[in-house]
Formats: sequence, C-alpha cells, structure tokens
Amino acid sequence: MAVYTHVEPDDLAALVAKYDIGTVVSCKGIAEGVENSNFLLETTGGRFILTLYEKRVSEGDLPFFVDLLNHLASQSCPVPAMIRDRSGVAIQQISGRAACVIQFLPGISLTQPTPAQCEAAGAALGTMHRALEAYAGARANSMGHDHWRGVAEATGDLDVVLPGLQSIVDDELAYLDTHWPTDLPAHVIHADLFPDNVLMLGDRVTGLIDFYFAASDFRAYDLVITHASWAFSADGKHCDPARAGALMRGYAREITLSDAEVAALPLLARGASLRFLLTRAHDWVHTPADALVTRKDPSPFLARLQRYSAADAASLFAAR
Amino acid sequence: MAVYTHVEPDDLAALVAKYDIGTVVSCKGIAEGVENSNFLLETTGGRFILTLYEKRVSEGDLPFFVDLLNHLASQSCPVPAMIRDRSGVAIQQISGRAACVIQFLPGISLTQPTPAQCEAAGAALGTMHRALEAYAGARANSMGHDHWRGVAEATGDLDVVLPGLQSIVDDELAYLDTHWPTDLPAHVIHADLFPDNVLMLGDRVTGLIDFYFAASDFRAYDLVITHASWAFSADGKHCDPARAGALMRGYAREITLSDAEVAALPLLARGASLRFLLTRAHDWVHTPADALVTRKDPSPFLARLQRYSAADAASLFAAR
Repeated sequence: MAVYTHVEPDDLAALVAKYDIGTVVSCKGIAEGVENSNFLLETTGGRFILTLYEKRVSEGDLPFFVDLLNHLASQSCPVPAMIRDRSGVAIQQISGRAACVIQFLPGISLTQPTPAQCEAAGAALGTMHRALEAYAGARANSMGHDHWRGVAEATGDLDVVLPGLQSIVDDELAYLDTHWPTDLPAHVIHADLFPDNVLMLGDRVTGLIDFYFAASDFRAYDLVITHASWAFSADGKHCDPARAGALMRGYAREITLSDAEVAALPLLARGASLRFLLTRAHDWVHTPADALVTRKDPSPFLARLQRYSAADAASLFAAR
Repeated sequence: MAVYTHVEPDDLAALVAKYDIGTVVSCKGIAEGVENSNFLLETTGGRFILTLYEKRVSEGDLPFFVDLLNHLASQSCPVPAMIRDRSGVAIQQISGRAACVIQFLPGISLTQPTPAQCEAAGAALGTMHRALEAYAGARANSMGHDHWRGVAEATGDLDVVLPGLQSIVDDELAYLDTHWPTDLPAHVIHADLFPDNVLMLGDRVTGLIDFYFAASDFRAYDLVITHASWAFSADGKHCDPARAGALMRGYAREITLSDAEVAALPLLARGASLRFLLTRAHDWVHTPADALVTRKDPSPFLARLQRYSAADAASLFAAR
C-alpha cells in the first residue's frame, strides 16, 4: 500500500511529453510496492507504471537498476524495463522525486501459489540467474549477511518484539558468523522474490518485479529466499513438500547447483529467515502506528528459522 | 487511499467468467475512493473498475446506484455504468463483499482547477441535473439537513476538535432550522462533487464518479457543494471570484435557477459547509489514529461557513 506523493496533472503532462508515448489518458495511484509511490499511467500510446522513488531507494542506485532491468529485458526475462525518453534519459524528476516510466506487465500477484505455480516461479528464477551469470554490474548487498548484526542492534531490545527473541538472535548471529560460506557462485540476485513480486497468469510467469533489493550475493541465497516465501504456510510453521519440491524442480531445470551449494541450502535458508525476521522486527519497532505502511509480523520468519534449523532441514530442498 | 479487501485470483477469474469481457490480464488495487476497495481490472475485453463495497455503503442501496448510473449513462452523462453479467446481474459477491464491475473512464482528478475547468465542471453538473429532473428514483439523504444535529451530537464535545466550535455549531444549527427552505426544485443529486470526483482531460470533463452519497435533495444544494469545493483556497479562507464565477457561468448554460433558488444560495452554502465541517469533525474524533484512511481537517469548512455567512456572500455566486 503505497502512494505517498501527489503528481499534478500539468507536471505529468510535461513528463509524458518527453517520451514517444502519446498523451495522458489516465493516471491512478496503485497499492503496490511498499517503498515507492506507484501509478498506473495510461497514455494514447499504451500503459506504463510511473514510479516515484521515496526515501528508501537511493537515487544513486537508480542507474544500476535501470541497467540491470534493461539487461534482463534484453535477455527475454519478463522484467519491467525502464523506458528512456527521446533524449535517452530514464531517470526523471517530478514532484520533487526521482521517477521512472516503466513498462507495464500483465499478470496478477499470487498469495496462495499452487505447486505448478511454484514450479514456474522456480524456473523463472533459474532463467533469470542464467541471464545474470555474465552480467557485469554489481551492487553491495546492504541487507546481506554482514549487515544483520547491525539491524539487530538498531532494533534495540528484541524481547520487546517477541519474548525470548534476543537470545535466539544472538545465538543465530554467532552461528552464522562461524559457518557462513565465502566461495559459492555469486552474481546480482533479486533478493526479494516473494510471491507478491511475481506476476502470473494461470501457471505462467508474466513478470518479475520490484528489484529494489537486487544486489550481489550467492545465487543459492536468492533460491532460499524464494523457497522461504513460496513454500510455507502463512504462519511460517509448515513447509509444504509439494510446493517446495515443485519450486526446486523448476529451478533445477535451469540451474544445476554444485554440491557445495546443495550442502549450504539449510544454512543459507536460516540466514534468509533471520534477515526478514530482523528487518521486520526493526520496522515493527520503528514504524509509527499511524503510518500508511502496514507493519509486517516478524514471527512467521522466526518459525521458518526454527524449521530450517531442524536436523532434517536438507529434505525440504529435495526436487520432487 | 483505500484497498481493504484482498481478492484471490481464482475468485476473480470466476467473477470475470460471468461477463462477456474475456479473461483477466491484470488487477491492481487503486488508491481511490475512501469508502470502498477499488481495483483497476484489465481483461482481454477492456479495462474496468472492480469495486468491493465496504461497511459505509449499504448493500441495500446498491440497486439504487446501479439504476441511477445506468440512467445517467443512457442520457449521455459521463458516468461509470455498472456492467451487467450475461444473466443481467450487476451486483455480485466476491471475497465476502458485494461488488460491481464498472465501466472505466479516462481522465485525471484535479486538485487545483483553473477557471476554464471550473466552468466545465459547472456545465457537467448542470447537464447531469437536466438528466435527473425526470428520473423516477429516490433515496433519502442520510447526510442532509435533518441529520446534521445528530452528527454533531454523535461527535461529542466539538470544542475538542476546534476551540469554540461547539457554540458556533449550536448557533448555526438553530439558524438553519429556522431558515432552511422547503420548496426548492429537488431531485436526486450527486451531493459530493468535489474535484477528486471529477475526471478531466485538459478542460474537458470525462467522468463524474463516486455517486455513493447521491440522494434526493435540492438541486441548488448540489450546486453549492460544488461551489464550496471548487472555488476556495485549500484553507477555505479565500473564495476565488474567477473560479466561482466560471463555475456559475458553466452551470447557468444548462440550468436557469429560480429567483428563490438564487436567493437561497448563501444559506444553502452555509448548510453545505456545516455538513462537511460536522462529518469531518465526527471522523476526526472517531477515526483511530492508526487507520489506513486519512483523516481530513475540518477547519477549512469552518472557514467556508464564515465566508458564506458574510453580508456580501450573495456576490460569490455571480456568474462571470
């Protein structure tokens, strides 16, 4: 749910006039993306998403995102390319914000994916990873393993969020610091491919969206983020073997993981669970109760952390 | 800002299958309408608004709105008709809510209308009133003059909202009870034609929307609501003669007010100001600070009430 910034019709008309996309027909704020203001813009030339970047996306990162998305689009990945105006400029200014006019993609975000949809999502992730292996761009992962201790400390007393959480997190940070791998295959990854960032029509993936956490990290870490967000019950307590197996099967069609990657999956998944547990706990504490952004409950990622820590966790990653 | 209810893709596909509008291509929650959940629905057959009715719109009133909008659409007024499915049904059920698939209209809501846009809005209001003169439907105005005292009492101590407001409201209610007219031309009116309920492209009105306050009342009362919301500065303290005059000129092209109506305009405008002052004060007190709905400041309507109470208020309604 996110429309923070108002756009004046005259400013919008001036922006659209820079592009070869005709004139404005309609522009409606949409409840999509928690970080930015998004509008569904219709012109006489087609439909587009107009995104105004709010404080969480650094304007300095925008050229990276433009380049990344245009690379992926050129490799036939279903990602929303950022459109360039007649002068070749993709990053504009409107209403005091950096803004981009972005390709519109069909499809609907799922909330309860079926195994067949999980398989399609796994395959789409794998296809994207193949397109990213040779991609020259890079971006430090500000939400990666090195930063989790800092997020925990910035949150304050974690027992305020969930009783007993502080010692669980302290133990987990110590464990991950000791065991986190250093030499797995890495490139730019999406790093946030939850179901709400995948558009589908039936069992077909029509869009991978919201790349604003994309950064350089292990490809297997991207896979476990997708696993954690697609294969579990809403409370995080139950991993559905059918959905998890289908996701892994779809991914395996495109990417053959190394033995070291396979062995690391449970550990990486503990890390992914901790990452979302910590950022949600941080936002839970620091988001004012009257903010327009909906705070997300951290506890389902504590449940995932515990599931991925169990002795049989490797079995959750078997392709079926 | 309003998307309260989630729609499952399978439920959406089943709903769309009832209509001759093809299959779903996209469905995005839009930040429009404070009372309902609204989605911009694209199908292979076109674009539509899908509205799910939340608690403020009574399901029992929906047949009235369907009939009203279809009457106005048949009279070439630019209103969003509610589409009927293959069985002739317009009011559906989805996600536990009554819902309608509604015609999509082009255009953008204004926030700072120019005099030319005010003239177009006045003319569109007048055209709609001509189409409503012979309309047989009726609906009691639950936000009309008879109900203002009840809203004030349900709000509690008005001095909590604005110091001194209680005695101002008490005096105004007494004055309006004594002077409120009884025999002006009346029919169904929009009753909430603020700029955000009018879609425009340039100086052309392309849509009159959000009829969920439509009810039977004086047509001149509809005109003063439009006057109060189109011709004033944001703080309500300044009525712009150019915008007000243009609005009245546009309306006068379609409707010739009687002498009694012209004489009543300042009084009716005091009533309109009090209506929005009271409902905003009520919502200010009763809306939780953490609600997703943005509370609206009541004080600009106190400023309008004072402006419309001045000795020279009749001059604000001169067509220019």
